[in-house]
Amino acid sequence: MSTTHEIKDHLPALSPVSGTTAYDLSKYRRIVILTEGHTNVSTAKTANGLLRFRGDDVVALLDSECPHRTASEALGHGGDIPIVSSLNEADSPDAMFIGISPAGGRLPAPMQSAIRQAVASGIDVISGLHDFLSSDSQLVAAAAESGSQLIDVRRIDERSTAKHPEFRKGCVRVHTVGHDCAVGKMFTSLEIERELLKRGLDAKFLATGQTGIMIAGNGVPIDSVVSDFVNGSMENLVLAFQQHDFLLIEGQGSIVHPAYSGVTAGLLHGCAPDGLILCYEGGRTTTKGLDHVPLKSLAELKTIYETIASARNPCQVIGVALNGRRLSADEATAEKEKVSAELGLPVYDVYRDGPQALADAVLELGKKVNP
Amino acid sequence: MSTTHEIKDHLPALSPVSGTTAYDLSKYRRIVILTEGHTNVSTAKTANGLLRFRGDDVVALLDSECPHRTASEALGHGGDIPIVSSLNEADSPDAMFIGISPAGGRLPAPMQSAIRQAVASGIDVISGLHDFLSSDSQLVAAAAESGSQLIDVRRIDERSTAKHPEFRKGCVRVHTVGHDCAVGKMFTSLEIERELLKRGLDAKFLATGQTGIMIAGNGVPIDSVVSDFVNGSMENLVLAFQQHDFLLIEGQGSIVHPAYSGVTAGLLHGCAPDGLILCYEGGRTTTKGLDHVPLKSLAELKTIYETIASARNPCQVIGVALNGRRLSADEATAEKEKVSAELGLPVYDVYRDGPQALADAVLELGKKVNP
Repeated sequence: MSTTHEIKDHLPALSPVSGTTAYDLSKYRRIVILTEGHTNVSTAKTANGLLRFRGDDVVALLDSECPHRTASEALGHGGDIPIVSSLNEADSPDAMFIGISPAGGRLPAPMQSAIRQAVASGIDVISGLHDFLSSDSQLVAAAAESGSQLIDVRRIDERSTAKHPEFRKGCVRVHTVGHDCAVGKMFTSLEIERELLKRGLDAKFLATGQTGIMIAGNGVPIDSVVSDFVNGSMENLVLAFQQHDFLLIEGQGSIVHPAYSGVTAGLLHGCAPDGLILCYEGGRTTTKGLDHVPLKSLAELKTIYETIASARNPCQVIGVALNGRRLSADEATAEKEKVSAELGLPVYDVYRDGPQALADAVLELGKKVNP
Repeated sequence: MSTTHEIKDHLPALSPVSGTTAYDLSKYRRIVILTEGHTNVSTAKTANGLLRFRGDDVVALLDSECPHRTASEALGHGGDIPIVSSLNEADSPDAMFIGISPAGGRLPAPMQSAIRQAVASGIDVISGLHDFLSSDSQLVAAAAESGSQLIDVRRIDERSTAKHPEFRKGCVRVHTVGHDCAVGKMFTSLEIERELLKRGLDAKFLATGQTGIMIAGNGVPIDSVVSDFVNGSMENLVLAFQQHDFLLIEGQGSIVHPAYSGVTAGLLHGCAPDGLILCYEGGRTTTKGLDHVPLKSLAELKTIYETIASARNPCQVIGVALNGRRLSADEATAEKEKVSAELGLPVYDVYRDGPQALADAVLELGKKVNP
């Protein structure tokens, strides 16, 4: 903190990867998602995100242990995308994305051989794990020989401190925040982006986690950035995309999460949102992975988020996104009415209700910020 | 954030350094502080801290360009500690501490030869810079030959997420927070530690920055920790030292600092303080290094800090530490009266008034927490 670090003003904060200084994962159009042994496990979160938001770019799931033939049979979505048991069966893939986010970020041993096969075939391999592909010298040597690229989206060497620039007027920044981890912040941001694009507006999702980055093509893996540069890396990401009229910025953790509040606070100040969407899971009462820590009330959280965010830029919660996966339709309706009355804000279950109403709230905010 | 990382419960979160897993800088009793070309520059902050809080362990300052003969002549403190122009003139040193904290954390070229000489002589070299000594392969080879240890206090590989443990009852945690960087948080924490020790109490300063670590002997260089592990590394530091009755925990940045709020928030939740001491510099109105960002009022900051901290553990500001270096004695008196009336809290200029009154406030807090 006692030092000032060099800034790379207005440069996109992308992860430098062995030899390259940036990447764009959106160029891949024929992706094989590697879920070996994990297709039906909750760690297949990355595969699920890719299928939902980038299904058109996916040619197959690779899992030799999965008894199902298609994504929809196994996961309930993803249509007829086949589940193959070897890379040879996939139809002309141009990349392999590792489709899991396991506890600890370790690469499961059974995935090794499929990765080596992809590299030997000259296919790029993209990973969001903490175990870096590019730290495996044998793999790096094989990739150099075949021309395959190894991309670790969590490998980042960001060294810019934040400078509190004025962002472009006309660029409305909306950030999803939550009462906990894994409540649907990425999902909500992406759904609103899609809805705004559908209406012909210039919207852009900014990814801050590994799954979001694989969907969007780039972004900042904020939990892997050295703490001194968290705010700065988000600032750079916004600077790189502020030509868009609406930025939907993926949130992480919670401002009161015992483990991740530092990440959440830096992200919040770095992107300087005009509005927040408060995401929560109905029926969840304790912190994910920390059952002894009760969650705060939404009213408390709204106050804390608005206070902290407004220290950087005037900011209010403009809507609430309920994740109603534990609730019946009736329970979800009752929950929405109760919370809406408590907070005086619109509450929607994006999965059941669609993102239209929250997209409307974003447009309302836009009119307020740029009258 | 989607992953859970392994914990090393109850292990001190110390920086692993080439070959060792921890270090203790307090063992050095005959330190040469290297300030080559920088003795009278504000970047000599580390040297100044060492002289003030660890002067008994210092045998010399090394600066061949300094025209003065003693520390007190050059810096106004440090007594008769000589300023020497070569390592040979220093009296039996057991370590060389690099005494500067320059912008960018780079090692100035003129310091290289003195460092190489120390290494060749088998003397350990300790650095708080971003340019790691242990990344210089020639230096590492020379150290291996001579038996010198190269210790980079900012090199840390902390991979523990916070678990929100219950800390030992009876361990009172007091954290210094501020309205900005470089306002005296380390100074205030150390002065209160000394005052409590003088009264025969079991107090311990916990360092979170490079200068503090060099003074205390160990600690966590929190601005160099990967963001996912900031809260966790502080939790581990407290767990490692919770046998003490009073922990004085060094703060960093500010909860609303555009660049460092992520560090500040993670630190605050990780150490779960019972009380805060709000440190500020009288007369400072804009953020250090970011003149276009006005500072918040102390009343606003008090509210924000108490709200955020209490989300983890019930916590209040128990006193205010004025840094009065820009103020005359009369101005300082007026300032203290004004702020004390505004906040309803005791305000002291630790440099002018001493730490006694703030130490009293810590004891009062102790009675409240452990009645």
